[in-house]
Amino acid sequence: MTETELRALMARAVREAREVCPLAPSITNTVTQNFVANAQLAVGGSAAMVYLPDEGECVAEAGGAVYINLGTLMPVYEETVPRTARALAAAHKPWVLDPVGVGIGSLRTRLIEAVRDAKPSIVRGNASEIIAVAQLWGLDEASAAEGGAEGPRGVDTTDAVDAAEAAACAIARFTGGAVAVSGPIDLVTDGRTVARLVGGSPLMTRITGSGCSLGGVAAVYAAVADPFVAALAATAAYNVAGAAAEHATVTAAAPLAAGTGSFQVAFLDELSRLSPEAVAEAPLSLAPAEEA
Amino acid sequence: MTETELRALMARAVREAREVCPLAPSITNTVTQNFVANAQLAVGGSAAMVYLPDEGECVAEAGGAVYINLGTLMPVYEETVPRTARALAAAHKPWVLDPVGVGIGSLRTRLIEAVRDAKPSIVRGNASEIIAVAQLWGLDEASAAEGGAEGPRGVDTTDAVDAAEAAACAIARFTGGAVAVSGPIDLVTDGRTVARLVGGSPLMTRITGSGCSLGGVAAVYAAVADPFVAALAATAAYNVAGAAAEHATVTAAAPLAAGTGSFQVAFLDELSRLSPEAVAEAPLSLAPAEEA
Amino acid sequence: MTETELRALMARAVREAREVCPLAPSITNTVTQNFVANAQLAVGGSAAMVYLPDEGECVAEAGGAVYINLGTLMPVYEETVPRTARALAAAHKPWVLDPVGVGIGSLRTRLIEAVRDAKPSIVRGNASEIIAVAQLWGLDEASAAEGGAEGPRGVDTTDAVDAAEAAACAIARFTGGAVAVSGPIDLVTDGRTVARLVGGSPLMTRITGSGCSLGGVAAVYAAVADPFVAALAATAAYNVAGAAAEHATVTAAAPLAAGTGSFQVAFLDELSRLSPEAVAEAPLSLAPAEEA
Repeated sequence: MTETELRALMARAVREAREVCPLAPSITNTVTQNFVANAQLAVGGSAAMVYLPDEGECVAEAGGAVYINLGTLMPVYEETVPRTARALAAAHKPWVLDPVGVGIGSLRTRLIEAVRDAKPSIVRGNASEIIAVAQLWGLDEASAAEGGAEGPRGVDTTDAVDAAEAAACAIARFTGGAVAVSGPIDLVTDGRTVARLVGGSPLMTRITGSGCSLGGVAAVYAAVADPFVAALAATAAYNVAGAAAEHATVTAAAPLAAGTGSFQVAFLDELSRLSPEAVAEAPLSLAPAEEA
Repeated sequence: MTETELRALMARAVREAREVCPLAPSITNTVTQNFVANAQLAVGGSAAMVYLPDEGECVAEAGGAVYINLGTLMPVYEETVPRTARALAAAHKPWVLDPVGVGIGSLRTRLIEAVRDAKPSIVRGNASEIIAVAQLWGLDEASAAEGGAEGPRGVDTTDAVDAAEAAACAIARFTGGAVAVSGPIDLVTDGRTVARLVGGSPLMTRITGSGCSLGGVAAVYAAVADPFVAALAATAAYNVAGAAAEHATVTAAAPLAAGTGSFQVAFLDELSRLSPEAVAEAPLSLAPAEEA
Repeated sequence: MTETELRALMARAVREAREVCPLAPSITNTVTQNFVANAQLAVGGSAAMVYLPDEGECVAEAGGAVYINLGTLMPVYEETVPRTARALAAAHKPWVLDPVGVGIGSLRTRLIEAVRDAKPSIVRGNASEIIAVAQLWGLDEASAAEGGAEGPRGVDTTDAVDAAEAAACAIARFTGGAVAVSGPIDLVTDGRTVARLVGGSPLMTRITGSGCSLGGVAAVYAAVADPFVAALAATAAYNVAGAAAEHATVTAAAPLAAGTGSFQVAFLDELSRLSPEAVAEAPLSLAPAEEA
């Protein structure tokens, strides 16, 4: 596929999400749930969050795609997450795994292992989370050679994103889907092509939920597009909206000290105004993935 | 009661909530909890959210009215919701039931059945939720004839609200309280009179929590007014604040593409500035309910 | 220590939090979690919320300081809170206890008793909560003489803060840390010196989470400063940001009716712009604590 074709598909995903209004239910952390839901609604989707095992199975059936985020685990997740993942795999529904905070406690690790064979369509995380998933899934030969995980922390360095390239490609080849690594330069891959995207704003790391809500928006797009296109469209959308929100916030009053409260509001505004064309024109470079 | 008298009572509810500052605790979903609390505070009330059974009983005792929303059920709700509802009934305290997402999983259904005899003072939902409650409570002869539920989804059509009229009236007659059906045209009834209210903004369906927070505000008003007046005042307040917030957001910067982030902020602003007079003058038409 | 020295340490805490970016994980209520995390990020810290016992122990190990808020208890808290508090005590890590809603149900009481011997570095609450903790910990001789608790409610009166002085000093002497009592005039003590701080805005009581997020910010500062300085810096920061946010909101559009939505946004903006100097210059008076 050419870059032009890929960009056209990204625009189509953004457009179709607004037209179809796909339901993208979530099992997600309580900290950023509201922001995830508002971001999903802003891009045209519909949201529903659940915790119970049979409710997970029910929304797996009802939704166009599901977002599973391991941020704030409750005891019931031990049953809910694997059952929902199995239901998604059985129904051939796309789903997004966000392995937030892998390394904290034992349940996160067990859940990531438990959903391995349900093969998430998109795995989204920062570099250390992606590397940790590849290790837990036994896909880490290449990534281990490049340096391995640095433990869970909110913000990645540019280097760390590059360090996750092999892990991301290995995961994508294993799932047959896509992986999105968030950082100052974002990396999205389907295991064959590696896209690097720039944009956004440093303010995105100073509000909670940028990453989670990107995962939720990726689920909305995955309901109307293939995983690689959905992951690209969501990442590009966040870069476009983040840059526009920073611009809107900074010019408003305080050029040297934009406020994070205003930025969050402006970011949702920009997501809700996002045009397919702007997403299709987002800074993006493609390269072939290295051989496994 | 004449329309003039009813409007005067709506204004009084809005005024008294600011003067009395009633505590309206909630057992409510985690997605929109923050917005519910902020909306309750904006109209003058006081908020407290709990999950545990004895805490539900405790706040049933301490509060002026309680809001119970079934949005994101946790396992402990199996015990908390019925015990709290029984405590409310025993104490003759007003309470609002918001049957969010009825149809997802089995616990929601069981909880709605379990609280039937505690007779919520106000049932608030969209058309399909209200129809589903009437069916679960065996009150659905009339509504079944009109078409029945369409399954849970965030947004209703105008038709759907009309389709829920018989179900709403049947519930209100059973509980002796009121029912509020949210939609492009809202319907509020005490089983004898059917009020239709217009206003608000289409943007209210593009942010999460409009419906939940309306339920929370209805609980605040139910602490100082009878259920029908409280449901009317809350619905009218949301229509007034929603329209004003859309106006404020749209004129600010982008006339053709108001942002949902700004809208949510403006909506809370308008709620916090709401005058009793504006609520009393909200567009509203009254008609007698059809015979059961 | 002179007032000048103390103010210099407050400024240093604010500055170091931005430089070090300390991780201050929380076990905190679901209502205001998002606001807590955004406030912690706004002042330069890093946030992570957990519910499970081994995750609490893990973040106690990983974090610079931990914030424990008893607002919306879930069943698992029975195990998580004591185990986390013990892990914090064993690791000599600073931690902040926020005894929200003490008096609602039985688990809150048991948890406050259970963490007594882990001696929180900072106890933060309103006057009635602080008095209740002193009573539960058997430190209440002085405070009982002054009037005792008035039951849990969101907003305190000025008198209530003074009524909590003896309880606050008793707790601080017992823990060897600090106590921060929120109210129209705030009181912060280490058991030897009693500081009174003014500022902020009445609008802070009309949004949910001012108190919780102050506790979360106190944990961020406690990761880089001693408990008394951290409690003072957080309280002063809230007074400075609250007053500035009220000013920004009120002058914007509606001089007589500032909106609570805009206020919340402006408050986060001001927190994220906060200068060490402004905190160091916040209105503050010091007096020796009365003898126990």
